Amino acid sequence: MFFAGLLLTPGAAWANPEGDPEQALQALELLVNNVWMLVATVLVFAMHLGFATLEAGLTQAKNTVNILFKNLCVVAIGLLTYAGVGFSLMYPGEAFAGGVIGFAGFGLQPPADAETFAYADGAYTYWTDFLFQGMFAATAATIVSGAVAERARLDAFLIFSTLFVALVYPIVGMWQWGGGWLAARGFHDFAGSTVVHGVGGWGALAGAIVLGPRLGKYREPFAIVPIRGHSMPLATVGTFLLWFGWFGFNGGSVLSAEAGAISRVLVVTALGGAGGIVTAAATSWQVQGKPDLSMALNGALGGLVAVTAGADVISPGQAVLLGLSAGTVVVVAVMLFDRLRLDDPVGAISVHLVCGAWGTVAVGVLVPEVSLVGQLVGVGAVGAFSFASAWGLFWALERTLGIRVGADEERRGLDIDEHGSEAYLLGRMS
Amino acid sequence: MFFAGLLLTPGAAWANPEGDPEQALQALELLVNNVWMLVATVLVFAMHLGFATLEAGLTQAKNTVNILFKNLCVVAIGLLTYAGVGFSLMYPGEAFAGGVIGFAGFGLQPPADAETFAYADGAYTYWTDFLFQGMFAATAATIVSGAVAERARLDAFLIFSTLFVALVYPIVGMWQWGGGWLAARGFHDFAGSTVVHGVGGWGALAGAIVLGPRLGKYREPFAIVPIRGHSMPLATVGTFLLWFGWFGFNGGSVLSAEAGAISRVLVVTALGGAGGIVTAAATSWQVQGKPDLSMALNGALGGLVAVTAGADVISPGQAVLLGLSAGTVVVVAVMLFDRLRLDDPVGAISVHLVCGAWGTVAVGVLVPEVSLVGQLVGVGAVGAFSFASAWGLFWALERTLGIRVGADEERRGLDIDEHGSEAYLLGRMS
Amino acid sequence: MFFAGLLLTPGAAWANPEGDPEQALQALELLVNNVWMLVATVLVFAMHLGFATLEAGLTQAKNTVNILFKNLCVVAIGLLTYAGVGFSLMYPGEAFAGGVIGFAGFGLQPPADAETFAYADGAYTYWTDFLFQGMFAATAATIVSGAVAERARLDAFLIFSTLFVALVYPIVGMWQWGGGWLAARGFHDFAGSTVVHGVGGWGALAGAIVLGPRLGKYREPFAIVPIRGHSMPLATVGTFLLWFGWFGFNGGSVLSAEAGAISRVLVVTALGGAGGIVTAAATSWQVQGKPDLSMALNGALGGLVAVTAGADVISPGQAVLLGLSAGTVVVVAVMLFDRLRLDDPVGAISVHLVCGAWGTVAVGVLVPEVSLVGQLVGVGAVGAFSFASAWGLFWALERTLGIRVGADEERRGLDIDEHGSEAYLLGRMS
Repeated sequence: MFFAGLLLTPGAAWANPEGDPEQALQALELLVNNVWMLVATVLVFAMHLGFATLEAGLTQAKNTVNILFKNLCVVAIGLLTYAGVGFSLMYPGEAFAGGVIGFAGFGLQPPADAETFAYADGAYTYWTDFLFQGMFAATAATIVSGAVAERARLDAFLIFSTLFVALVYPIVGMWQWGGGWLAARGFHDFAGSTVVHGVGGWGALAGAIVLGPRLGKYREPFAIVPIRGHSMPLATVGTFLLWFGWFGFNGGSVLSAEAGAISRVLVVTALGGAGGIVTAAATSWQVQGKPDLSMALNGALGGLVAVTAGADVISPGQAVLLGLSAGTVVVVAVMLFDRLRLDDPVGAISVHLVCGAWGTVAVGVLVPEVSLVGQLVGVGAVGAFSFASAWGLFWALERTLGIRVGADEERRGLDIDEHGSEAYLLGRMS
Repeated sequence: MFFAGLLLTPGAAWANPEGDPEQALQALELLVNNVWMLVATVLVFAMHLGFATLEAGLTQAKNTVNILFKNLCVVAIGLLTYAGVGFSLMYPGEAFAGGVIGFAGFGLQPPADAETFAYADGAYTYWTDFLFQGMFAATAATIVSGAVAERARLDAFLIFSTLFVALVYPIVGMWQWGGGWLAARGFHDFAGSTVVHGVGGWGALAGAIVLGPRLGKYREPFAIVPIRGHSMPLATVGTFLLWFGWFGFNGGSVLSAEAGAISRVLVVTALGGAGGIVTAAATSWQVQGKPDLSMALNGALGGLVAVTAGADVISPGQAVLLGLSAGTVVVVAVMLFDRLRLDDPVGAISVHLVCGAWGTVAVGVLVPEVSLVGQLVGVGAVGAFSFASAWGLFWALERTLGIRVGADEERRGLDIDEHGSEAYLLGRMS
Repeated sequence: MFFAGLLLTPGAAWANPEGDPEQALQALELLVNNVWMLVATVLVFAMHLGFATLEAGLTQAKNTVNILFKNLCVVAIGLLTYAGVGFSLMYPGEAFAGGVIGFAGFGLQPPADAETFAYADGAYTYWTDFLFQGMFAATAATIVSGAVAERARLDAFLIFSTLFVALVYPIVGMWQWGGGWLAARGFHDFAGSTVVHGVGGWGALAGAIVLGPRLGKYREPFAIVPIRGHSMPLATVGTFLLWFGWFGFNGGSVLSAEAGAISRVLVVTALGGAGGIVTAAATSWQVQGKPDLSMALNGALGGLVAVTAGADVISPGQAVLLGLSAGTVVVVAVMLFDRLRLDDPVGAISVHLVCGAWGTVAVGVLVPEVSLVGQLVGVGAVGAFSFASAWGLFWALERTLGIRVGADEERRGLDIDEHGSEAYLLGRMS
């Protein structure tokens, strides 16, 4: 700590304003923006722990090590591939403006002014930009992980994740946030109801279809066998941590520390989640006779996903309404997919795909400046590309490596066969 | 992220100082204050996960789903009712200065300058103010939830919480922070030892009395049957998360980013919690023969509650002393309430009511500028109103809906009867 | 909140610039630096929960209360002794520049300008400086706690921790960060691969040697009996929380909010952890036949420890390489220590000592401006002093109090004999 700044630019401009107060002010503004963006980045990092604990809690104890291992690896895969190719695919530069694909070259390529870089909506450093965006990247694959849990082969999932995070997510991201064709058409997706959660949700749908349901989940002719999660405390911790991190996910998407913008976005984020809890709890109370905790948790997440697309443009009142609607939508969607025999152990498709699409389309309904048709086109295009890509990857993996563990292994649990260990040893007292 | 700012004021003043450096400086100061206040807000949000895990850990496994469900719903209830009526009750405006009740109207009512609003101690936006205060609101009901755990009906508790958070907490809050009669009398409660923790603690006392003890807790003639919590890791996670969030609870209560103030408040917060651990561990070691972890956890919380009232005015040395005293106080109080056959499963009354009152009164002893009599009056008035209100609500609910589950349900655990599910499925290996 | 500022300097300089814009700018810069440093401080606090859950998860259920209790107490001990003597030992003032030991007096001694204090690399308050450094202090003892888990007496460990944190860590810290002889020789350890993690790691080695292995861990002639941790979710939560807090540990070590520096440091921190996961997972997959989750977790931590020494001067690419190398190093080290019959239940020596030394030496290899010999000298000197001190403390405690619990107690678990309680009561359903 004493010896800092050896290779870094020592003494930034603001330390010695040297007569130009306006430049000094801009340098200070950069400092504040950068602090806020890094706080947001660290909060988004915490979401990965949220995903890990939520998915582990909502599935069976015998597959817990496998789920935790996958979620840990996905963070590493996300950060490393984003540094290697993802960031360059997602932000290929102005030469590809309005396009569908572009590439700025392998690895991180900091410009000369990397540490005083000015972006469209504010000023912060190139490194902050990379890290904030990189934290988003792993999210798409993590969402898929929940839907394919308890039956997917570990090696196949890791290969899928690497390709999905390295290529599919950044290409879609470029369409909207990298200045691509969706941005040019006026599609509005502030922090990624579609660009992040939709991509993950459609990937989850492809995975759930290709893999098929868990053994014993559906019995002829019409029986649906509930397979309950093994730890509701773990699932609850996960939901709260996701919400906690979402304040950075949405708050950082303002891309500056502009006071009005970030505080409104956080209010919207808080109220959206709150609304989702109320109706998900009430709907499950009504439909199932008793209020279900896992439904209430998914309600919070559904509300958060739904307000993410328009968190910058909807009012707090609209956020409450959107959250309330999403809470009902997510419960209905979970039950509907179960009827369709589409086995999604954690409800990832309902939360991320369905509520993501609903929230994105809602911006077109609620906000006059945003075209409803444009929102539908964006949701459709992202969905088609993400689903087709994920399907193709799973299909290729099935043909080569195989994507599903054997029936014996599935019954025993993936922890023992894939990892040689168990998640819990609670009984051993000697 | 690309399309930000559609409906928000684009380009804040500081982006184009246009010749007035002083205005530009104030705009930047607003930016920094606002970032700090939002960081504090997000930290306070994390306290709700802390409460959920602490309460779940300190109670029996068979009631865990119920506790997690209640704590999740209380966050939603807190945020939504605070947006609907609480904020307007708590900050009714200058017309009600020095009064006991006021109301500024339903819903959020942002002023024209909502995004550059200047408050007494600093400048940040209206939205930040709402959200920071809103995160506090749910706390009062959450504290009650711990004391009535394992025997209160879910529906009755949710109705109680809604009314307690929507009406009782904001009215007390107005007395002190909304410019009401307690503030006018010079009552000093910086971040809410009494205004938040006291309100919750007195509500907890009312609930514990009206509900009566859990079945089997006390046996004739003098036996006290310990009912231990089911997961000490969960309880420990909860305590650490509460402490983590307390840095925002107290640090944000400075209501600006003033460097000396926020850093001193955080030092006081850290040392108060540390002191509480030492004496609670030592006292339980002395009295019980062995050092009890749950006592040490409650010692940390007792220390934190105790330094909250004067975190802005006491010295770090006084914070250590106050923490040390609170650690002993909380252990003695827990044992005393047990002797009095007042069953409080998580020690909420000892932590929040007793240490809150102790910390509030201590400010009057330690700080010459603060009147001891004034502190006693404040503690007494808040206690009387909170206890009477909570008692009234529980009494009315008992007469109508009933507030206690049946004996069979209590023995089986609330999870199965109220929610139709269990918290853990650890044994199922096929 | 209404009544803030009673004893604190009311109205900081920046509130009334009064004609001097440069002074006003500096005051604002102080504000931003201070906010960042406090955010970092709170993140480092979260690491203590990370250590508690990681260690608890990787050990047996019957010792969980003991581990949680120790980790909670160590936070209190760290903060209180650092306020009492540690801070004064570590930063004794310029009179001791280049020296090996110094002392500025008991207790906190804020200078007249405590709230506008300017440090070498930036400006923030005296209180922030104390608290950020104080959060580091407890870390050294916490690292030891993992290596001596499941067999050390509670009272002996608490006495060891108090002396180790109060005296040993601050003396080493003074050598480097307090302007002592290592700093004067140009030793480079940015955030403490050696000064924090090395000190703890060498203490862990001394403890593991003096205590000897757990009963039944090694059998004649060559058998190594694996004693697996009791909760992989808890261990995973711990690892993620440590990483989360590490963004503050490294990011705050910049000692200012300088945008380029803090954002680069966070990128390096993220990529180091990511690299460690990949190779630790791959190495365990290769060597053990299956990918081990606990190895992957230790890989993340090994990567983080390794990049900590040079986080300010290595490039992101170098961070990836260092992380990748550390992931392999940590797995090999864990297996090697097991062969040497050195029982370290959580792998603390491999993670903190080995990866810490590796990362510190690597700075001398990777960065031309840093002397490799100087790095080796620093690692050696810190190691010799820390190991000898810890050995001496454990030896003295063994001669007096005894440091190891009896064999019966060890078999039953420390929770019952030391604390009179168990960590889990999952089976009780009535």
